[in-house]
Parts: sequence; C-alpha cells; structure tokens
Amino acid sequence: MDFKDEMLTKQKVVNDYLMKCMEIKCSPQIILDSMKYSLFAGGKRIRPILAISICEALNGEVKDVLPFAASLEMIHTYSLIHDDLPAMDNDKYRRGKLTNHMVYGESIAILAGDGLLNYAFENIFDFLTINPCKKNISAAGVIAKAAGVSGMIGGQVIDIQSKDKKIDEKTLHDMHRLKTGEMIKASCLTGAIIAEANNSMDIVEEYGSNLGIAFQIVDDILDYTGDEKDLGKTIGKDKKSDKPTFISMYGVEKSRELAALYTEKAAKNAKIIDKKGFLLELTDYLLKRKN
Amino acid sequence: MDFKDEMLTKQKVVNDYLMKCMEIKCSPQIILDSMKYSLFAGGKRIRPILAISICEALNGEVKDVLPFAASLEMIHTYSLIHDDLPAMDNDKYRRGKLTNHMVYGESIAILAGDGLLNYAFENIFDFLTINPCKKNISAAGVIAKAAGVSGMIGGQVIDIQSKDKKIDEKTLHDMHRLKTGEMIKASCLTGAIIAEANNSMDIVEEYGSNLGIAFQIVDDILDYTGDEKDLGKTIGKDKKSDKPTFISMYGVEKSRELAALYTEKAAKNAKIIDKKGFLLELTDYLLKRKN
Repeated sequence: MDFKDEMLTKQKVVNDYLMKCMEIKCSPQIILDSMKYSLFAGGKRIRPILAISICEALNGEVKDVLPFAASLEMIHTYSLIHDDLPAMDNDKYRRGKLTNHMVYGESIAILAGDGLLNYAFENIFDFLTINPCKKNISAAGVIAKAAGVSGMIGGQVIDIQSKDKKIDEKTLHDMHRLKTGEMIKASCLTGAIIAEANNSMDIVEEYGSNLGIAFQIVDDILDYTGDEKDLGKTIGKDKKSDKPTFISMYGVEKSRELAALYTEKAAKNAKIIDKKGFLLELTDYLLKRKN
Repeated sequence: MDFKDEMLTKQKVVNDYLMKCMEIKCSPQIILDSMKYSLFAGGKRIRPILAISICEALNGEVKDVLPFAASLEMIHTYSLIHDDLPAMDNDKYRRGKLTNHMVYGESIAILAGDGLLNYAFENIFDFLTINPCKKNISAAGVIAKAAGVSGMIGGQVIDIQSKDKKIDEKTLHDMHRLKTGEMIKASCLTGAIIAEANNSMDIVEEYGSNLGIAFQIVDDILDYTGDEKDLGKTIGKDKKSDKPTFISMYGVEKSRELAALYTEKAAKNAKIIDKKGFLLELTDYLLKRKN
C-alpha cells in the first residue's frame, strides 16, 4: 500500500471508531451535535495516527491503542474549540468551516469543549473497566498530564500572555513545546506504552519531541505563507495579532531551515522505530503539508 | 464530637489534601493562581464530605477515598468557573468574592476551568498508577460519567436553553437531576464503591437521588428568599433572568414542602447507611443551610 492509501485507511479506522464512541445517549441533542461538528470537521487525525502507527511498528495491536488514540483526538478537538472562542483567539473559520461558537453560540461551544475533554476520559475509564492493566493506566496518565496545566493548557496560557509582547527565544520554545509538543509526544508514547516496547521508550520520546517542534514551525510558516484555501482559515493572523511565532523570531528562511533540521532529526528516529517505513513517510508528509 | 466540629474537621481534611494536590510545578504561575483562587474560595466541600462520610459509615478508609473526593471538588469548581462566564450566567460574584473571570479575565478563567477538569482526572490516574484496583477504576468511571454530557454538562445545556422559556415539569426535573443531582449521587456512590459496600449500593444511590433533588430545591429557594450577605452572590438572579426554577414552577410554599419531603426521604436512607448519625445530621444541615 502506498503512503497516501495507508493514511486514508488509518484515518478511516480512527473516524469509524470515533463515530462509534459518539453514539452516546444524552438528552439535549445540541451538545452532541456541537461536539460532533468539530470532531468530524476534517481533521487529519495526526495524533491518533501517530499512536496507532508507532504501536503497530513496535508490534502492538491497533485495537488495544484505539481507545487512547480516540481520546487524544477528542482532547485535541476540545482544545481547538476553546482556542477559537472570542475570549481566546477569536477565530471565525477553521479547516474551511465556521468555528464551533460561530455555529452553536459561545455557551454551547464552551460546553462542547468541556464535553469532549470529559468524554476523552470517560471513554478511557470505560476501556479500563474491561482492561484494567497497568500499561493502560500508564498511557492514560501520560495523556492526562500532557493535556493539563504542565502541558497543553500551560502552553496556551503562555500563548495568551504573549500577545502583543516581545518574548525571548526560551519562552517561544516553551510555549510551543507545551502547547503542541507535549500532546504530540504523548501520542507517540501512548503507542509505545500500549505495545509494551519498554526498550524503545527513549527513542520514541526523542522522536515525539523532534516531531513536535518541526510540526509547530511548519504551522507558523503556513500561517505566514500558506494558501487560505488550503488552510481553511484566515492566514497572516499571527502577524496581525502580533503573536510571537518562529517567523517573527527567526524570519521565513531560517524557520524553513529549522523545520527541515528537526524533521531530519525526527526522520532518523523514525527509521529506528519503524522498519517498514510508514513513520518516516508520515514525518516527511508533516513537513511538506499544505494545511 | 458534635456535628459542627465534625464538619470542620472533615473540611480541613479535604482542604489539606486539595492544597497538597495543587503543589504542581507548572511554568505560567497565573493559571495555578487562578485555579487555586476558585478552589479555595470557601466552598462547603459537600461533595467530598458526602464521599468521605459514606465511605467511613460503610467501613471504608478515608485515605482510600480522598483522591476521588478531591477530584469531585475540582470538577465541581471547574463547573462553577465556566457557569459564571459572561457567555453563560455572567455572574460577577460567588461566595462573596469576585468570580474567576472578573479577577483573571475570561481567557484565563476558561483555561482554569479546563485545567481543573483535566487535573481531576490526572490526579485520579496518579492514584490508579499506585493503586490499580477495580474499585478505583469503577469510582473514577462513575465520576467521569456524572460530570459529562449524560450528566452535569447535559444539565447545564438544558439550563442554558431554558432561559426566557416556559419549560414543563419534566424538563425542570431533568435539568436539576443532571446539573446537580448526578454529581451528588456520584459523590455518594464513590464512598460506597471505595468501601466495597456492594450490598449498600442501592440505598446509597437512592439517598444520593433524594438528596440531590432536595439540595437543588433549597438552592432555588435561597436564590429567591435568601440573604445576599449569607449567600455571597446576587440574589433574585434566577427571577430576573427568567430562569425556570422550582419557585417559578411551584411557588415558595410548595417548594419548601418539596424540599422537606425529599430531605425526609433522604433522611430515612441516611439512617440506614450511617448508624452513627453524621449523614443524617449532614442531610438536615443541607436543608437548613443559609448559603
């Protein structure tokens, strides 16, 4: 199977599972509609696919990692809904569609975010009830920590506090490491933990760190140079809002070099983790993506 | 020890444990400050105390239920922060203090809520890592479900959608059962689950249901008739915002009767659950409270 087909297959596995997860009985239908609107708004499923492909590469089984992969995507989606809110980044479009609060209103959007975050853990506890083994608890703990104040939420706080401010290099790196990097790393580690690949934990963590940095630099470059139609959101927004980015810190040229450098580092790790080559192609795809 | 002393002792146990939980290392201090501001704003700790006292009454140990009790309070606190937001109930005061967003701004308040919800589960996973037994997973699952879209969040959605509307009795009861009742019931069940009191599960669930209804009716009565100084928030707010309540549905007199009726039912359950009498006194205290 070529890379593109394998990505599509994996996306379908994730989407089918997420769809099954969202067959919840709950009385006010609007909150489910709102959660599903963002969860199925065309995300690339990078985090779940990282977890799944690393788990597979390390001889784990897809069915064992899927519940965690789904929860990673729910957490990612909730963070987007809350980031887009008027009180946060005030974004009207995401992935070419109106943001959650533009469709459902601010209060439902806040609750849909809360609902997805909560459901990510509900879903994990449901799985733990049937499979209460240590590796599952360990993966859940890694995900929760990465999503929390010492991880993604902490990064979002730095982001908000950095608007209209000149920040130093360390703060920029901290912001991205926490906001994007920790969840990317947790996705990778989840795959390795579920595969019980204890000897590969260090290399997977290194891969996740390198990939996380490359991923965020590419995001910043796309916001600056990308095509609005490809991205499905307003571009140049970071610059307009005077948000510090890799571009404002290093310029486009140097940022491209940095993205390539960290992608190369991640690629080296990927070759060690996955002999079959999918992870390497995924790493390369993330550098070259247009959205 | 008389009831008042025992309440104070239990509150101190909960507060000390929560304080220890909040010794997190996280780089932007403001998010921790904001989370702690609301977590230590003088809450009565009803949910954790329900979990602890039912666990004790059924021969469980306080130390085993404390992590869950703390998470129940974190979830309750996050829900208050998000409920108070301008896009939701737009409240300026709670428990006599400015609400979170009035002090820290809307974006940090949203993230502090997210942070507390996430940390409630992080905290549980930390405990599960050391104590991966089935009863702990079961209690965690009950809490997560009660907090989610089939529970508290669902209730908040009904609440938001009911503003300025005439709703029927069933919707009013559903709203309260979900918004307040499910978390109260989950607190009670957590105590019984950790005490491994399988034979008492039904009576504890019944107690939680009855108490939850009584609790919410008393809340509605206090909003209508209470003293602003006692309550620490603007009263008459439900009426002003045309929010359907037990008062608007049944009037004050009938609401008082209903509160007494459900308290009586809960009191009968309490006598069976707790031979020492603390739960009965707690039940009575919740009916007669002024805030």
